[in-house]
Amino acid sequence: MAEVFAARRDRLRERYADNGGAVLISRPANVRYLAGTAPPGAVLLIGPDGDTLCCPATPLSGVPESGRTDEALRPALLPEDGPDPVIVAAGLARRAKAGELAVEEHHLTVARYRAIGSEVPGLRLADVGLAVERQRIVKDEEEIACLRIAAEITDQALGELLESILVGRTERHLALELERRLVDHGADGPAFPTSVATGPNSGRRGHRPTDRRVEEGDFLTVCVGADYRGYRCEIGRTFVIGTTPADWQIELYELVFAAQRAARESLRPGMAYRDVDLAARRILDGAGHGAGLAPLTGHGVGLEIDEDPQLTPAAMGKLDACVPVTVEPGVHLPGRGGVRIDDTLVVRQEADGGPELLTITTKELLAL
Amino acid sequence: MAEVFAARRDRLRERYADNGGAVLISRPANVRYLAGTAPPGAVLLIGPDGDTLCCPATPLSGVPESGRTDEALRPALLPEDGPDPVIVAAGLARRAKAGELAVEEHHLTVARYRAIGSEVPGLRLADVGLAVERQRIVKDEEEIACLRIAAEITDQALGELLESILVGRTERHLALELERRLVDHGADGPAFPTSVATGPNSGRRGHRPTDRRVEEGDFLTVCVGADYRGYRCEIGRTFVIGTTPADWQIELYELVFAAQRAARESLRPGMAYRDVDLAARRILDGAGHGAGLAPLTGHGVGLEIDEDPQLTPAAMGKLDACVPVTVEPGVHLPGRGGVRIDDTLVVRQEADGGPELLTITTKELLAL
Repeated sequence: MAEVFAARRDRLRERYADNGGAVLISRPANVRYLAGTAPPGAVLLIGPDGDTLCCPATPLSGVPESGRTDEALRPALLPEDGPDPVIVAAGLARRAKAGELAVEEHHLTVARYRAIGSEVPGLRLADVGLAVERQRIVKDEEEIACLRIAAEITDQALGELLESILVGRTERHLALELERRLVDHGADGPAFPTSVATGPNSGRRGHRPTDRRVEEGDFLTVCVGADYRGYRCEIGRTFVIGTTPADWQIELYELVFAAQRAARESLRPGMAYRDVDLAARRILDGAGHGAGLAPLTGHGVGLEIDEDPQLTPAAMGKLDACVPVTVEPGVHLPGRGGVRIDDTLVVRQEADGGPELLTITTKELLAL
Repeated sequence: MAEVFAARRDRLRERYADNGGAVLISRPANVRYLAGTAPPGAVLLIGPDGDTLCCPATPLSGVPESGRTDEALRPALLPEDGPDPVIVAAGLARRAKAGELAVEEHHLTVARYRAIGSEVPGLRLADVGLAVERQRIVKDEEEIACLRIAAEITDQALGELLESILVGRTERHLALELERRLVDHGADGPAFPTSVATGPNSGRRGHRPTDRRVEEGDFLTVCVGADYRGYRCEIGRTFVIGTTPADWQIELYELVFAAQRAARESLRPGMAYRDVDLAARRILDGAGHGAGLAPLTGHGVGLEIDEDPQLTPAAMGKLDACVPVTVEPGVHLPGRGGVRIDDTLVVRQEADGGPELLTITTKELLAL
């Protein structure tokens, strides 16, 4: 494993550090991607004479895990009430005679940036931009294996919930129960705040669970995902409560299902992000739901639940193989409710079987 | 309520905006403090011609709540995939002919700061520093009422857990159960990740729950708190599992209890932060535990779980009335375990009865 992280750092080193520069990574997901661990507050220095993970100590931390497994990475443990790790790392870069220090201007605050300038003078500051985020878009098979396990855990937790009695329970309770089950099955935690939406709330993207109770005849929309070793997936399903879905429910469900399937089937290397979005949007738009649609049909997942690429009408760029994305169209009818269907898939070559569906819970309209 | 928020903003306006300047607040807890609400991504502009809350829309947001109750605050709802609210707010400041815009340099990223400079030229940028954080230290009675309810909820959840059977259950399960009970009793969620530590883990500050099961003879340390309407409190207690605590357990417990009591009793307006820390530290140090102690004895709480003041040996400043703080000394003996005792209290004048204890669960050494 240690070589994986060293190889990831080498790609940055080639671009920024090989002619005597250094790179300072502060965004936690990027630190984790490059170092294999990201204790709270840790920053990573990729320097001309080697790499250092600067960690503020806590009573618990001790030597960070990757310090033991990754010989190419020096850990520097700072006292808990000690200096800002960013300043320590900049000092190390200067001592290693780095001429330039590239920082993450989209993460570093103005105050910390100024502090580097005043406390470690003589370093030319540059911007590393979104270099690490871009590097993170295409996943290796170890990363995909983590996402696959995250999806398995999520499917299990959701499956168990569906076997229990739902009528009369609140959105909030169902969400908590799902999160408990994720952890029971080995998740490090939920990948994002679990959304459970009933009746008129169903189908709303990002709905925060309320004290509304599940009633007969409701649509029930669940959106949940596990975090497994830092990797986060997402599934969304809509069910109907009771035995006989109403006609409008069946109709709306079939429409969203068709839109979701069209976007899923469009996933292949070389496909423009915007065309994936369009595949779903066109169908919902054609049925008269264009105005209320979310601005995106899906997004990348990985060490964060919302990564690049963004599958939106204005997105530039094309899919590569080994990019995991969500496909999550939905329609919400104010006052009535609605449907969302959300999967996590990995883009694969046609020859490799096409898109790999990670979240395998059925997408039939179940009456619970 | 709306007047409360307007009055808070007026204090900033007097300092920064009255001579034609404007203030841009981006740190979420500060936005919430000044606007009464902080939808994800929202920023607040305090301008010469009035105040605006710039919110990126989500399919759910609609008009932010305070927009209905706080007539002095204009809501500006931006499209979900629209421009950075920081840029919109800066544009409003320029349109209102503000000469200078003070930003939170300790929160704003370098990239957003640069974007203001390039997309809204002609505004002189200044730093508002920690002005809002400082204003937040002394709480009003409405804020203290929220903290009181948060503490009541926390006491209830902890009390219920103590009545259940603990032996054989894992730290992780106990933590999840506590968090569920917090929500059952009306919390918006946990104030911070609940810590449950058993046996050799007990007494460790910030311990992350593991799969270790509670055993007879263990010390069990629980640290938990509720978030009620954004206000966060904290309680920590250590129990012994089984009927007869060992001598070392009784001794260590009495020591930490004495240290915690000394610090609690030192809480009064005018007392130096460092002397509150010293009151506890001196006792633990005198018993030979000085080396392993945490760098702080307590900290402020409010809209964040870790606010100013910091009760540390090097802290400058003195307590005021109506400042809520934690008092949380602990000792951990590697390999054996330890004790932490943690309360949330509000500093009050002697004439008003001295420090107000919000977390009232007993601090007797209970054998469970």
